[in-house]
Amino acid sequence: MSDGVLHILYLIAVSAEAMTAALAAGRRSMDWFGVAMLGCITALGGGSIRDILLGHYPLSWVANPYLLLIAVVAACTAIVFARFMEKLRAVFLVLDAVGLVVFTVIGCNIALGMGQPLPVVAVVGMITGTAGGVLRDVLCNDVPLLFRRELYASVSLVAAAIYVGGLAAGLPHHPVMLVAMAVGLAMRLTALRYNLHMPQFVYTRDWH
Amino acid sequence: MSDGVLHILYLIAVSAEAMTAALAAGRRSMDWFGVAMLGCITALGGGSIRDILLGHYPLSWVANPYLLLIAVVAACTAIVFARFMEKLRAVFLVLDAVGLVVFTVIGCNIALGMGQPLPVVAVVGMITGTAGGVLRDVLCNDVPLLFRRELYASVSLVAAAIYVGGLAAGLPHHPVMLVAMAVGLAMRLTALRYNLHMPQFVYTRDWH
Amino acid sequence: MSDGVLHILYLIAVSAEAMTAALAAGRRSMDWFGVAMLGCITALGGGSIRDILLGHYPLSWVANPYLLLIAVVAACTAIVFARFMEKLRAVFLVLDAVGLVVFTVIGCNIALGMGQPLPVVAVVGMITGTAGGVLRDVLCNDVPLLFRRELYASVSLVAAAIYVGGLAAGLPHHPVMLVAMAVGLAMRLTALRYNLHMPQFVYTRDWH
Repeated sequence: MSDGVLHILYLIAVSAEAMTAALAAGRRSMDWFGVAMLGCITALGGGSIRDILLGHYPLSWVANPYLLLIAVVAACTAIVFARFMEKLRAVFLVLDAVGLVVFTVIGCNIALGMGQPLPVVAVVGMITGTAGGVLRDVLCNDVPLLFRRELYASVSLVAAAIYVGGLAAGLPHHPVMLVAMAVGLAMRLTALRYNLHMPQFVYTRDWH
Repeated sequence: MSDGVLHILYLIAVSAEAMTAALAAGRRSMDWFGVAMLGCITALGGGSIRDILLGHYPLSWVANPYLLLIAVVAACTAIVFARFMEKLRAVFLVLDAVGLVVFTVIGCNIALGMGQPLPVVAVVGMITGTAGGVLRDVLCNDVPLLFRRELYASVSLVAAAIYVGGLAAGLPHHPVMLVAMAVGLAMRLTALRYNLHMPQFVYTRDWH
Repeated sequence: MSDGVLHILYLIAVSAEAMTAALAAGRRSMDWFGVAMLGCITALGGGSIRDILLGHYPLSWVANPYLLLIAVVAACTAIVFARFMEKLRAVFLVLDAVGLVVFTVIGCNIALGMGQPLPVVAVVGMITGTAGGVLRDVLCNDVPLLFRRELYASVSLVAAAIYVGGLAAGLPHHPVMLVAMAVGLAMRLTALRYNLHMPQFVYTRDWH
């Protein structure tokens, strides 16, 4: 997979994340401006948190402000076509899964480029893939779905670990990246299809 | 408008934001220490988030710790004079509007000084003007008012756009800044007076 | 107290914070992966926020990824031994108090090493000691306990002020640190023992 294809997938993922965030905003009856802002924060927040944690400046949307425009347009499109999106539910779930692995791999690449230790690279990849959704849920006043939903962050971490492990083993860059993304995507779609869960930890006493 | 006047307006705005944040803290029955902290976070959080997003160090309150003192004193004053503040409701709404445009313009100035692209300058101005209130609402466990309230973030963005657009057109710095602030203030007060709203996006289905 | 002892106390505190965070995660029925993530965010979040506010890179867990491993192992241990932890309630409250003062002093040391002004050093110490718990509560969709609970952030600030004040007075480094930690620990345990509160600010009108 060339870097150009990865970038196009990234732009598609940014759009898809902004569109699904817009529906979350609509469930909270946000106004159009709020919808656009939540779309930007969700779609670009994971990468922003990654860059802030690593001290990697400038942030992607600061260097490339057109990313804000893409997220705003996508979120506003979702307002208009919300009913139509329902019929494409399966498409958006796949796009979300693609976004998860694409964000993960791009996050790993940023950390690799800074020469970070390999465990940090994998964790940073996972943060890039998932933190935008955490921001969305916090701003919508929900307990983040990420901490409760099966095989989402874990899929991201597995994809990152395959990628990082393959590079550490001296395997060539592009094929390893492609395999990591394919495995992550397959895991995520399998989890969706068969509704796979991680075990929950349910604790009801309050003594703190 | 000279920089000295802008700085005085900034200090007034910091105080006013800390005072209204104290009332929000009181609605959650926070203790006095919590009130002081929420005052600081609300009044100084917008600028802090701006600086973190831009990698602009040191943060304003790190360079000028007296800002923390101002916010703490303002928040504690609000505890004592809460009943009195109710009678000054209109004054505080005006001060909040002044703070919105002052924070916006100051945020733009920081981004301009770093040579950021103009769309980023406008967005950063809006973040400076509004993010403190988002932090306040998240810490009070509310969906941020910003995403639901009419003509608040949008006023900030319009003021920032006028400022940035005027500078890009080669107009002189101080008059453009004054016009941007005046337009923003007029928009915000008009919105308050006539209870103007942006259209909301209400979406009730849950399929994600 | 040597730096080696301080570091061991730090690792114990990281483990204890991750374990109590795991119980908070269990109250929200998070899955195991979410428990591990909340453990890491709570135990390492205060230091991360400190470093981000100061522009102090790399963050501690980026420089020392084994900290992530400690927090994950501690959180998973808490899942298995949750029932056993209940019997050790007093131990964990003491460990939490130790963590509060240890995190505070370490945060002060980082800020001192950067040559920050002394009021900032004290505030940064308090942020290091308390911000991880704020992140935990926000992610669990609660109003942060910190803003409502008696003598927690204030204990941290008193310990930081003693430490900073002693250094400013020219007293020797290690004894001052030891005294600051001892006073903070005594205050916190006294507050727990006698259920001491700060006055609350209760405000019920909604006019914002």
